[in-house]
Amino acid sequence: MVPAGKEEKDAGGFRTLLETSPGQAARYLDGVHAADRAQWLRDVGAEDAWRVFGELTTESQAELIEYADDDLRAVLIARMSAGDLRGVLDELPSDEAADLLGEADTRVAEDVLAAIDSETAQELRELAAHEPDTAGGIMATEFVTVGPEERVGDAVKAIRKQGDDAEEELAVFVVDEEGKPLGFLPDRVLLSQPIHTPVLEAMVEPITVGVAQDQEEAARLVEKYGLLSLGVVDEGGSLIGVISADDAAEVLAEEAEEDLLRMAGASVESLHGRATVLRRVRNRLPLMGITVLSGLLSAKILRWFLETPGEGAGTSDILRYLPLIIGLAGNVGVQSSTILVRAIAMGELEGPRQRAMLRSETLVGVVIGFICGLLLAGVVSLLEPGQLGLAVGIATAAAILCAALMGTSVPVLCTRMGIDPAIVAGPFLICLSDVSGSVLFVAVAKALIQA
Amino acid sequence: MVPAGKEEKDAGGFRTLLETSPGQAARYLDGVHAADRAQWLRDVGAEDAWRVFGELTTESQAELIEYADDDLRAVLIARMSAGDLRGVLDELPSDEAADLLGEADTRVAEDVLAAIDSETAQELRELAAHEPDTAGGIMATEFVTVGPEERVGDAVKAIRKQGDDAEEELAVFVVDEEGKPLGFLPDRVLLSQPIHTPVLEAMVEPITVGVAQDQEEAARLVEKYGLLSLGVVDEGGSLIGVISADDAAEVLAEEAEEDLLRMAGASVESLHGRATVLRRVRNRLPLMGITVLSGLLSAKILRWFLETPGEGAGTSDILRYLPLIIGLAGNVGVQSSTILVRAIAMGELEGPRQRAMLRSETLVGVVIGFICGLLLAGVVSLLEPGQLGLAVGIATAAAILCAALMGTSVPVLCTRMGIDPAIVAGPFLICLSDVSGSVLFVAVAKALIQA
Repeated sequence: MVPAGKEEKDAGGFRTLLETSPGQAARYLDGVHAADRAQWLRDVGAEDAWRVFGELTTESQAELIEYADDDLRAVLIARMSAGDLRGVLDELPSDEAADLLGEADTRVAEDVLAAIDSETAQELRELAAHEPDTAGGIMATEFVTVGPEERVGDAVKAIRKQGDDAEEELAVFVVDEEGKPLGFLPDRVLLSQPIHTPVLEAMVEPITVGVAQDQEEAARLVEKYGLLSLGVVDEGGSLIGVISADDAAEVLAEEAEEDLLRMAGASVESLHGRATVLRRVRNRLPLMGITVLSGLLSAKILRWFLETPGEGAGTSDILRYLPLIIGLAGNVGVQSSTILVRAIAMGELEGPRQRAMLRSETLVGVVIGFICGLLLAGVVSLLEPGQLGLAVGIATAAAILCAALMGTSVPVLCTRMGIDPAIVAGPFLICLSDVSGSVLFVAVAKALIQA
Repeated sequence: MVPAGKEEKDAGGFRTLLETSPGQAARYLDGVHAADRAQWLRDVGAEDAWRVFGELTTESQAELIEYADDDLRAVLIARMSAGDLRGVLDELPSDEAADLLGEADTRVAEDVLAAIDSETAQELRELAAHEPDTAGGIMATEFVTVGPEERVGDAVKAIRKQGDDAEEELAVFVVDEEGKPLGFLPDRVLLSQPIHTPVLEAMVEPITVGVAQDQEEAARLVEKYGLLSLGVVDEGGSLIGVISADDAAEVLAEEAEEDLLRMAGASVESLHGRATVLRRVRNRLPLMGITVLSGLLSAKILRWFLETPGEGAGTSDILRYLPLIIGLAGNVGVQSSTILVRAIAMGELEGPRQRAMLRSETLVGVVIGFICGLLLAGVVSLLEPGQLGLAVGIATAAAILCAALMGTSVPVLCTRMGIDPAIVAGPFLICLSDVSGSVLFVAVAKALIQA
C-alpha cells in the first residue's frame, strides 16, 4: 500500500512523537492520507487531537474535517474559533461547509457568517434552511453548466476555469436558458470525445430529483441508475444543486445502520460511541418501558388463567414473571450484541477504542439493570403479596447485567476465535440469555420466598 | 425525471403491450433506462421476461443483465443458449462476464469458453479461479496503463484508443516497467491538467490490495479513502485488476444485509425472495433447533428448582415451558419482520411482489410452526406426564403462526400508516409476540389439562 522507497508511517510512530511534541507529530503527518490522519487523531483523545490540529495548515485542517468521523468532528468543531472556522470553510465544498456551520456553536457560526462575503453567507444560509433529510439537505451547490450550443472543448474549458476547485469532481450539466438540465456530461465522455463534438451529441440523459424529496429516495436513484451525479432541481425545474455518488452511498449506509439499530431498540449514536452512557441509557429506556408493560400484562393474564389458592407466593406466581425477566434481559443482550457486531464489521473496534466501548456498553447494562430492577421491585410489590416483588427486582437486575456482559463479550470472543459474530451473536445470545435469566430468577425467588 | 418533450413511459404501458405482443413491448423499451427495463421485466414473470429479452439487441441484453437483480438474472441465464451467452459476454466487462459464466449451466459455459478466442477464455477462467469473496473475485481486468515518462496527453490518447470501451470508466494507472503501480490518474485530473504535464506530476498516490485479500477489507479501503478505483496486485506487486467504487459499494451493502439477516437467524436469500419456501424453512431451522434445546434446558432447570408434588401436570409444570414457546415465537416474528423491514427499505416490496412476499413469508411461518409443534409434542410427551406434551405442541404451532402473521403484517401496516417500520417492527413486535405466546399457551394448556 506504500509506494516503494517511501518510509512506512503508522499510528504508533505518531503517538510516540506526540508524547514529546505536537508540532513534530503534526509534521509526521506530512504525506499521510487524510483518512489515516483522521483515524490516528480520533484515537489519541480530545486534547491531543486539538493540539495537533492547531499545527496543521488550513487546507490540511479542512481535509481532516472532511474525513473525520462524528466523534472527532465534534471534538474539533467545539474548540474552533470563528477565525479557525472561516479559514476551513473556504476550503470546503458548500454541502460540507453548511454541515460544519450547523455543527458549530450558534454564536460562533453567526460570527463567521457575518465575516465572510455576503453572497457565500447567503448561499450557506439557504443550504442550511433545507430540511436535513431531503435532497436539498445533502446537495452541494457547486457544479459546472454549459449551454446547448456549446461543444465538448467548451465544457473542458469551463472545468479548467474553476482552477483548483476543478479537482473536486464538479459535475458538468448541459442546461437551457432557464437553467433546466438537458443532459449530463461524464468526465469520461469529455475525455474520449473529440473537442469539436457538440455537447448535445455527447451528453447522456440527466436524472434529477426535486429539492424537497426525501434523501433516501434520492440516494436510491443514484444507486439504481449507477449515477455519478444526481441533479437537484427547484420547483421550476432549474438545476440548483448536485448529489454525488459518494454522498448517496453515505446516506444509504447510514439509513441501513439506523434500521438495524432501531430494530434492536438502540440508536445510531451508540454505535459510534459518541453518546454518553446516560444518553444511551435514555435512548433505550422507551423499549424497556414497552417490555415492562407487556411483561406485567403477561403476568396479569397468566394469573387470571391460573388462579392459585392464595396463601403467599407459590411456585406458579414466581413463574408468571418469567416472560418479563426473559424479555428485558433479551432486549439488553440483543442491543449490546447488535452494536458490537456492527462496530466490529465497520472496523470501529480497533485499537484503544475496543476497551472503551466494552466498558461503556457494560456500564449501560448496569444502569439499565439497576433502573429496571428498582422499578419492578416497587411495582410488583404493590401487585403481589410477600417477597415476590423483591425477588423480581433483584432477578431483573441480575439477568440484565448478565445479558449485557454476554452481549458485549460474545461478539468479541467470536471475532478472536475467527467465527462470524453476526451468526452467533443474535440467535445464540438470545438462548443464552433466556436460560440464564430463567435460572437467575428462580434461584433468587426460591432463596427469598421459600427460605 | 423525464426531459421535456419526451413521452413518459411506465411499467403499466409496458405490461399492456406485452399482453398483445412481446415484440411491441420490447420496442416500447427503446429509450427506457436499463435499470427501469430490468425492474419492469422482473415484475412480469419468467416466461414473459424471457420472450421480451429475446427481442432485444445483444447490447441491450448485456445492459439488462448488468442491471438485473439476482432473481431476473437467474431466470434469463438459465434459458440462454451458448450462442446467446457468447454474444452478451462480448459486451460485458470481465468481472461481469466471469460472474455470468459462473451462474450459467456448467455445460453451456464450457461450450462458450470453447467457442470464444482462447486468450479471452483463458482470462475468464483465471478470473473464475479466484475465491469469490476475495479482491480477485470481484476485480475486473480492464484498465489502462501509461509509463512514468509519459505525459497527460499520452494518457488521454491511451483512453481514446480503447474506442467504445473507453466509456466504461476504465481506470488509468501509471506503472513501472514491471507493471507495479506508481500512481493513479483520475479523469478529472486528466481533464484539468495541460496535456504536456508529465504523468508523474499529475498522478495521485495509488492504493492497492493483494489479490487474495478479503473482498470486504478491499471495499472498506475504497470507502475509507474515497477511491474511484482500487488497484489489485499479484504477489509480485504487479497490477492485475481494478475494483471500482460501484463494485465496492455493492460489496459493503451486501455484507451489511448479510449481518442484519444473520443476526435474526434468516438468510440473504429470503430477502430477495429467490429461495423457495422449503429452502427458507431449512435455512431457519438451525436457529429453531438451538432455541428448542435451550427452552427444554430451561424447563428442566426450572423443574429442578421448583419440584412440585407429582400428581399430573400442575400449573407450574405448564409455566415451565413458557420460555420455550415465547422464544420460538419471538424468533419467527423477528425473522419475518427483519426481512420485511429491509425489503421495504430497499424498495423490493413494490407492485406485484408485495403480495407474493407476504404469502411466502406466512407460509414459511406455517411450515416452521408445524414442524416445531410436532417435534415438541413428541419430545415433551416423553419427558412429562399427561397431556402437557400435546398442549406444548399445539401452543407452539399456534404461537409461531401468530408471530409470523404479526411479523409480516406489522411492518406493512406501519409503512401504510407512515410510521418507520424499523422502530416499531423490532421491539414492539417481540412484546406483542411474548404476550400472545403466553396467552395462547396457557389457554391451550388449561383447556387440555384441566378440562
